[in-house]
Amino acid sequence: MSDNISEKISEEIELRMLRSKKPIPLGISNRHLHLSEADCVTIFGKNALTIKSDLKQTGQYASEELVTLTGPKGSIDKVRVLGPFRKQTQIEVSYGDAVKLGVTPPVRDSGKLDATPGVVVKGPAGEVTLNSGVILAKRHIHMSEADAAELKIKDGDEVRVRAGINGPRTVVFEQVLCRVHPTFVLEMHLDREEANACMAQNNDECFIV
Amino acid sequence: MSDNISEKISEEIELRMLRSKKPIPLGISNRHLHLSEADCVTIFGKNALTIKSDLKQTGQYASEELVTLTGPKGSIDKVRVLGPFRKQTQIEVSYGDAVKLGVTPPVRDSGKLDATPGVVVKGPAGEVTLNSGVILAKRHIHMSEADAAELKIKDGDEVRVRAGINGPRTVVFEQVLCRVHPTFVLEMHLDREEANACMAQNNDECFIV
Repeated sequence: MSDNISEKISEEIELRMLRSKKPIPLGISNRHLHLSEADCVTIFGKNALTIKSDLKQTGQYASEELVTLTGPKGSIDKVRVLGPFRKQTQIEVSYGDAVKLGVTPPVRDSGKLDATPGVVVKGPAGEVTLNSGVILAKRHIHMSEADAAELKIKDGDEVRVRAGINGPRTVVFEQVLCRVHPTFVLEMHLDREEANACMAQNNDECFIV
Repeated sequence: MSDNISEKISEEIELRMLRSKKPIPLGISNRHLHLSEADCVTIFGKNALTIKSDLKQTGQYASEELVTLTGPKGSIDKVRVLGPFRKQTQIEVSYGDAVKLGVTPPVRDSGKLDATPGVVVKGPAGEVTLNSGVILAKRHIHMSEADAAELKIKDGDEVRVRAGINGPRTVVFEQVLCRVHPTFVLEMHLDREEANACMAQNNDECFIV
């Protein structure tokens, strides 16, 4: 074995050991949506949301407001609106939800809504028929710049993460997007089906592997 | 590096390469149940099921018969009965289904029903209140003795399997049980949420890693 290969293997092992020591808390995302201010006015008849509880990511919150989503094949009611407002309404569902609605959204990073399907979003004051905005959220890790430096990760990197550790259904999720931003708090986001597949719970410790 | 360690690493790499070359077709299990003959008589008023379609595993079939399951927190209707009869009625649901029903079944290999919760199973002729029988099916691979020999696997071994390959949500499932039997046809079984977590489809090729 040449010294060069030995060295590369050593570096890889060191990087893996470094990353494997830092627990990443899990946050499970149920289906939800982010509204534009204009769509909020149409659906709820007002230009503000009522804060129900703060989320872990700075400035983000669950609102008291709920909507019904309707696609070509079915409806899902009691879908929670998260705040604050976004420029464009974005709806994040699980794969199973998408089948039920009858839409085929792509797996996307938040905010990337080109060529996505739409649904009808209905609330107490009215409804909007969207031509786009539905995605399957790409699983991801929020991290601060300090966390990213410690883990030797750059914004946009993809990593593999083990979840459901010590349970009967441990899973390694591949293609996990790392999102680095000064306001982000260290947290891995999975959707409900991904979390159920490994029987993980909120705040479980996950590890990059 | 000592020769002994080098040799072990070589053997491990050879075993992994051997296994990684054999595609294992995926079969996705929706929620379903297997009935005892006595429970079938109570629920459907007859001691036989109507075959709808044969399953891949020899002698197993989907029947035309559907039931409603009811637990402490909710009901799920149109749950399909698979045949043939079993000694004891066994109900296989996803983690999400279990939450909806309000029961907390363990992850179990088929047939191991001690200390499992029950539900009410209702059909057109009547209902049975079960004290046990609900499980989350442990993900597993059915294989013939020839397949097992080729893969150097024994009945009861657990392996790691990559699924959702070439898609946007590849997953490595750990703790996958290998079940070896002369009548078994090579097939990996995941439940609906596990399959959705990696966006896998029936007959997709999975690989032991």
